[in-house]
Amino acid sequence: MQAGEPGAPRVVALDGMGGDRAPDSVCEAAAAISRTTSIRLRVAGPQARLEPLLARFDADASRVEVIDCADAVPMHEDPRAALGRTRSSLARAVADVAEGRAEAVVSAGNTGALLLHAARAIPRLPGVRRAALAAVYPARPRPHNPDPFALLLDVGANVACEPADLVGFATMGSAYAARISKVEQPSVGLLNIGEEPAKGDALLREAHALLAASPGLRFVGNVEGKDVPLGVVDVVVCPGVLGNVVLKLLESLGEVVLARGEALFHERADWRLGRWLLRGGLAKLSDFFDYASYGGAPILGLERIVLKAHGRSHARALENAIKVAAKAVRDDVCGAIAAGLDAAGRVGVREGRPA
Amino acid sequence: MQAGEPGAPRVVALDGMGGDRAPDSVCEAAAAISRTTSIRLRVAGPQARLEPLLARFDADASRVEVIDCADAVPMHEDPRAALGRTRSSLARAVADVAEGRAEAVVSAGNTGALLLHAARAIPRLPGVRRAALAAVYPARPRPHNPDPFALLLDVGANVACEPADLVGFATMGSAYAARISKVEQPSVGLLNIGEEPAKGDALLREAHALLAASPGLRFVGNVEGKDVPLGVVDVVVCPGVLGNVVLKLLESLGEVVLARGEALFHERADWRLGRWLLRGGLAKLSDFFDYASYGGAPILGLERIVLKAHGRSHARALENAIKVAAKAVRDDVCGAIAAGLDAAGRVGVREGRPA
Repeated sequence: MQAGEPGAPRVVALDGMGGDRAPDSVCEAAAAISRTTSIRLRVAGPQARLEPLLARFDADASRVEVIDCADAVPMHEDPRAALGRTRSSLARAVADVAEGRAEAVVSAGNTGALLLHAARAIPRLPGVRRAALAAVYPARPRPHNPDPFALLLDVGANVACEPADLVGFATMGSAYAARISKVEQPSVGLLNIGEEPAKGDALLREAHALLAASPGLRFVGNVEGKDVPLGVVDVVVCPGVLGNVVLKLLESLGEVVLARGEALFHERADWRLGRWLLRGGLAKLSDFFDYASYGGAPILGLERIVLKAHGRSHARALENAIKVAAKAVRDDVCGAIAAGLDAAGRVGVREGRPA
Repeated sequence: MQAGEPGAPRVVALDGMGGDRAPDSVCEAAAAISRTTSIRLRVAGPQARLEPLLARFDADASRVEVIDCADAVPMHEDPRAALGRTRSSLARAVADVAEGRAEAVVSAGNTGALLLHAARAIPRLPGVRRAALAAVYPARPRPHNPDPFALLLDVGANVACEPADLVGFATMGSAYAARISKVEQPSVGLLNIGEEPAKGDALLREAHALLAASPGLRFVGNVEGKDVPLGVVDVVVCPGVLGNVVLKLLESLGEVVLARGEALFHERADWRLGRWLLRGGLAKLSDFFDYASYGGAPILGLERIVLKAHGRSHARALENAIKVAAKAVRDDVCGAIAAGLDAAGRVGVREGRPA
């Protein structure tokens, strides 16, 4: 059967050399997925390195294929320079999806390079002005959404945004959250300096007006910095610089609080004993706030599913990312995004004016 | 002696009705300061309410004077509407400083109203393009600065900024940190999406070039969201929308992590016991991340010291803010800022071009 046929197993391409722990982490994740799911994997990277690793991790060879290539994009290379590396594992995995041999791609590699390669190789969905990078982050569970996660976008793909771009982010984020978190109508908030519609700069004020005039969205208005980790809304939209700073701040949240705790908890003997008894709970708390362990950041707005896993991803996080990618294909997230944008377009927001 | 004479006790004006816990919190703080320091206080608010409170908290009447006024700015009133309230405790406390009867003003009231009243009544220092609101926040102690605090500005006074404004923020923030935290040459970072100078939008790229060309600053380059709570630099500069979102996110940091901990720590009997033994340490950890308990946010760039205390301030936080305000007067923070801006101006950054 061809990749993408109904009923066929999902096919996911992997950047075998992407991530701080690659290729080991990628091969370990691919092996686990091959043994425990029906997902088929195509792993890009040097065959001579990947095949022994896959064998070592006991991969089911009938479900894992290696796309042989010699080059790799360094984690901190300038993304524009990386765009020339067409024989890199990253480029080959993206090409695999673009050319229909796989239905989704997962990479823990260089974020900027993945964005540029994906944007060049994979067409945008109709109605998409700009693709966006979205981050799934742990938040307080909400009454209508028991999933303790929320979505933040854009987190850095778009440093310069126009008001209509933020409506696009809201529409794409809602469609993704609805399919992946199974929330009927995800609530959307615009990240700003206060709740009143007139708050913020011209971009945010105009975006507020456009979002409020978008009937397809459950827009609840502006949200503030404190509302992000509290999970006040399912989808937080913002320009890329703001989202990137917020995401990286969230990523250090648990580490900062717990490091201060470690310093404090040694001050008294009873606290030291308490800390020792609680060590498993503190480790679990630390894990909860370890963003690197979650499923990955989707690039939304392209005709294929592209998932960026955290550069620090262990095999477990990559396994999650592969499962999320397969689920996104199965649940037709791209189709849902296109439908949402089409509905939004019909009321005029694509032209940058409220309906 | 007149307010401001060398050797005279410092004179601080207080907005007696500003803050969620006013006027009790303000009177309690004023009373404590009057008994334990030589600072003289002028508290604006309705005499009939404030005097009995001051007496109840055992204020030294020789050091506390009430500025009688009937009106108060509601905490959530639109700042432009509040600008009309010239007989409010906030406006009267600001006027007291503007007209030389006090040397600094502290308010836990409506932030926007304080910014507008202060900007109207108090002249800007020479060379200041825009006054900025700075926040002092708890960070990891740094090798060259054992003070576990850092400064973030602007946190919302300026929603639209130009590159040269960010140089102004850096210069004013450095002068404040040098005087208040006693760091010889505070390090300055520009909040951005990555460390490379070319990262970010046009505003951030141009600001980076200007900051790098400012010889009076110890500019270390771009810093990222994760670096803010880690205390990688002494002074973090950013446009107001970004700073406001970051500050509010930081404010909910401890609460979010510890609330998740509370949910987790009840899962097992040994964890429950550990948590009970550690309860004092956890409370202390929670206090450390309670931003409302710190000294207050200075408005930098005016000819007088204006300090915004957190709206949730207890008496203890207001006491801290009053002491910081008196210290800022004693250490001539305004003079240091003017000198810093003068030096920066001489190398051309005031014109928005690198030297």
